[in-house]
Amino acid sequence: MSNQLLVLQSDFGLVDGAVSAMIGVALQEARNLDIHHLTHDITPYNIFEASYRLFQTIEYWPSGTTFVSVVDPGVGSKRKSVVALTDTGQFIVTPDNGTLSYIKKYVGIKAVREISEVENRRKNTELSYTFHGRDVYAYTGAKLASGHISFESVGPELSVNHIIELPVVETKILADAVRGAIDILDVRFGSLWTSITREEFYHLKPEFGQRFEVTIFNNDMLVYQNQVTYGKSFADVRIGQPLIYINSLYRVGLAINQGSFAKAYNVGVGSNWRLDIRRLEK
Amino acid sequence: MSNQLLVLQSDFGLVDGAVSAMIGVALQEARNLDIHHLTHDITPYNIFEASYRLFQTIEYWPSGTTFVSVVDPGVGSKRKSVVALTDTGQFIVTPDNGTLSYIKKYVGIKAVREISEVENRRKNTELSYTFHGRDVYAYTGAKLASGHISFESVGPELSVNHIIELPVVETKILADAVRGAIDILDVRFGSLWTSITREEFYHLKPEFGQRFEVTIFNNDMLVYQNQVTYGKSFADVRIGQPLIYINSLYRVGLAINQGSFAKAYNVGVGSNWRLDIRRLEK
Amino acid sequence: MSNQLLVLQSDFGLVDGAVSAMIGVALQEARNLDIHHLTHDITPYNIFEASYRLFQTIEYWPSGTTFVSVVDPGVGSKRKSVVALTDTGQFIVTPDNGTLSYIKKYVGIKAVREISEVENRRKNTELSYTFHGRDVYAYTGAKLASGHISFESVGPELSVNHIIELPVVETKILADAVRGAIDILDVRFGSLWTSITREEFYHLKPEFGQRFEVTIFNNDMLVYQNQVTYGKSFADVRIGQPLIYINSLYRVGLAINQGSFAKAYNVGVGSNWRLDIRRLEK
Repeated sequence: MSNQLLVLQSDFGLVDGAVSAMIGVALQEARNLDIHHLTHDITPYNIFEASYRLFQTIEYWPSGTTFVSVVDPGVGSKRKSVVALTDTGQFIVTPDNGTLSYIKKYVGIKAVREISEVENRRKNTELSYTFHGRDVYAYTGAKLASGHISFESVGPELSVNHIIELPVVETKILADAVRGAIDILDVRFGSLWTSITREEFYHLKPEFGQRFEVTIFNNDMLVYQNQVTYGKSFADVRIGQPLIYINSLYRVGLAINQGSFAKAYNVGVGSNWRLDIRRLEK
Repeated sequence: MSNQLLVLQSDFGLVDGAVSAMIGVALQEARNLDIHHLTHDITPYNIFEASYRLFQTIEYWPSGTTFVSVVDPGVGSKRKSVVALTDTGQFIVTPDNGTLSYIKKYVGIKAVREISEVENRRKNTELSYTFHGRDVYAYTGAKLASGHISFESVGPELSVNHIIELPVVETKILADAVRGAIDILDVRFGSLWTSITREEFYHLKPEFGQRFEVTIFNNDMLVYQNQVTYGKSFADVRIGQPLIYINSLYRVGLAINQGSFAKAYNVGVGSNWRLDIRRLEK
Repeated sequence: MSNQLLVLQSDFGLVDGAVSAMIGVALQEARNLDIHHLTHDITPYNIFEASYRLFQTIEYWPSGTTFVSVVDPGVGSKRKSVVALTDTGQFIVTPDNGTLSYIKKYVGIKAVREISEVENRRKNTELSYTFHGRDVYAYTGAKLASGHISFESVGPELSVNHIIELPVVETKILADAVRGAIDILDVRFGSLWTSITREEFYHLKPEFGQRFEVTIFNNDMLVYQNQVTYGKSFADVRIGQPLIYINSLYRVGLAINQGSFAKAYNVGVGSNWRLDIRRLEK
C-alpha cells in the first residue's frame, strides 16, 4: 500500500544538519526510497501551520505516500507519537499535538495508531530525548514508506475521535455578508488566505468585476476597511490594486497585484484575525 | 528524447506548500521522474532573474532535461504558456513573458509550441485561475519529461521570432574601455556579474595583476569609482580588497575578497546600472 | 564501495543557480546518482561550520556515501583539493582547508588523496578559476559516487597527519565544574551547542531536575550568569525557562523552552565564547 515516497516537513529549517540526518536515517532503513520535502520553514513551534501545509498539499501526492511532519514543541513530554491513515490512502507520521487537525476535518482519517517508541525507534538512541524527528519519526516513516512494516505493526490502534484538534473558525453566513478568519499567508506574495470557502462566498452571488466591502479586525480592532474588486486572477486589477480571488485551495484570498497585502496593512493570521466581506448596495 | 529529469524553478519560495504541490502533481503523472530544483527564490515577479538563472545553469544539465520555470505575474491574463526546445535538446516549460530571453540569445531555441490549456491541464482545475505552476506547468513538464507526450503534442507551433524578449544591454567597446551593465548578483557573496564577456574584456588586453579604473553609474549618478586589480581568483587580492575577475559564466565579475561588493557600495542590478572598465595610463 | 549516494554541502545558498549547476554536472557524469543535500546555508567562508555540520550528520548516512563540501575561501589559491575516506567507509570531497577537522578528530580518517585538478576536472574549464564546486568537486564526487573511478585513482595519497586542522577547544574538568566552548547554534531554535560531551558533564554527577550555575564569557567579558535546571527535554521546564540538556549529538546544550537562548542573551559561537557549568552547594 505504501509507494516508496517519503515527504518530510518540519520547523527545523535547512540551515544546519537536522534535515540531512533525517534523510540519512531514512536511507539507512531503505535505500530505494524517493525522498521529497514539503517545507522545513514552518514557523518554529507553529502546529497550526504544519497542519495547514499538510492539508494544502496532500491531495496532490499519489495515494500511498508517507508524510513525516515534525513540529514538536512537546518533544520528550507525554504527547503521543502516531501514524494516521487518511481516507485517501496516505500516511502521516507525526506527534499527536494538533498537526492532524486540518487533515481530519477536510480530508478524513480512517485510522490512527500509536508508534511504540520502544520497537519503532532507532537502536541506541534511548538517551537522546530531543530529536525524535530523526530517531522516531523519520525512522518509522522510512519503515512504513518502504513496506518494511505494515500500518498494523506501527503500534496499537487509537480512536480517531481522540486525536488532538486545534480550534477551527467556522464561516458565518449573514444576510449580505460572509465572515471568517485569516488562516494563513501565501508567504512569498503576502496574500491572505481566509477560511471562507468558494461555496460559502457564493452565497453573496459574486460576479467577476463586482466590488465588495472588506473589513478586517484584529480581535475588536479595525485594521482595514475598503471596497475591493472580485477578480479571476491578479492581472484582473491594475498593479498595486487589491482584489478578492479564489485561491488554489478554492477558498477566498485577498491580494494586491504584484504587492503584499499583509505588509501593506500589517495583517496577521490566526483565529483572532477576522474578516467580513459585504455586498454593496447597487 | 526526454530523459525523465525534471528541474523546477519559481519565485514561490520554499516556505509554504506550493512547490511541494508541484512535485506531487508531477509524480502523480509519472512516478519514476527524477525531480530537482534550480531555485525557488527568484525575486517575486522578476522575469529577468528567471531568464538569467536558466541561462546560467542549463548547459550543465544533460540533453533531454525538462525545465519548468514559473515566474508568472500575468497568471490568468492572456499571456501564452509555451514549451521551448533549445538548440541543445532541452525543454523549457514557462509562461511566454520574457523568461526565454537569455536562452534565445545565448543558447538558441529550435522551436516553440503553445500549451493547450484545455488539453494539457489537470482535470477539474478549470476554476483555479491563480496556480498554473501546479495545474499547467508542472503537469505539462511531467508529461513531457516522462515521454507521456511528445514535444509535437504539446500544442500548435509558434514562431521563435515572436517569443517575448526583455531588452538586453550590449557591451560597448571603446578605445581604452569597455562599458556594460550589471546584470545580476552572485547573491550569497555579493559579487556583481556584468554583461561584459571575457572576449569583450580581452579588447583591453588585460593581464593578471594589472589595475583598471572601474566606474559604476546608476542612471547618470556616479556610485563607485576606483582602481581595481584584475585577478584570477579572489585569493589573488588581500581579504577586503576588490578585484575584477572572470566568473563561472566567462563574464566579468566584480568582488571583494571575503566581502560583499554589492553591500559595500549599495550597488543594484538591471539595465540602469552601468559600469565602465578603463585601462590606466602606464 | 561507493553506493550512488551523493550529498552536497556549501555556502552558496539556494538563491541562484550555483547548486543547480553542481547537480547537473554530477548527473551528466552519472545519470543514476541519488543526490541529496546537507545544507547550502553555511555562513559564507565559515570552514568551522562546514566541518561541524559534516560531523553532525555523517554517521546517519549509509556507509559508502560520498559527501561534497565546498566552503572554499581560498578557491584559486594553492590550497589542495582532496578526498578523505573515513573510518566508517564514507568519502568526503573538499578543499583541504580545515573542513576535515571534526571528522578527523571524532570520526577518524583512514586515508586521504589529492585530486589531480588536471585529470579529475571537467573538460574545457581550465579558464574558470572561481567555481571549483562545479568544475572539480561535484565532478569528482560524481565520478566517485558512481564508481566510475576508484578512491585510488583520485590522485596521489597524502599523509592524514598533514590534513589542515582548525583548533578545537578541549573541555576542562574542574573540581566542581566543567568548562568548554560554545561551538555552534541549533540555528532555528537558538539553542547553544557546547563542546562539552555527556561523559564530561557526568563528572558533575548531574540528576534531572538539579540546578547548576551557568556562566558564559565572551573572551573575558561576562555575558550570562544564572542557575539553570538540567532537564531531559525542553518540556521539562516551563515555557520561557532555560535548561541544560544533552543534545542529539550527546553534548551539552543550553536552550530556552520555546524561546531562543542565543537571541535572549546575545550569545555568539566560536572558540572565544566559553562557558562554565558549576555544581551548586546543596
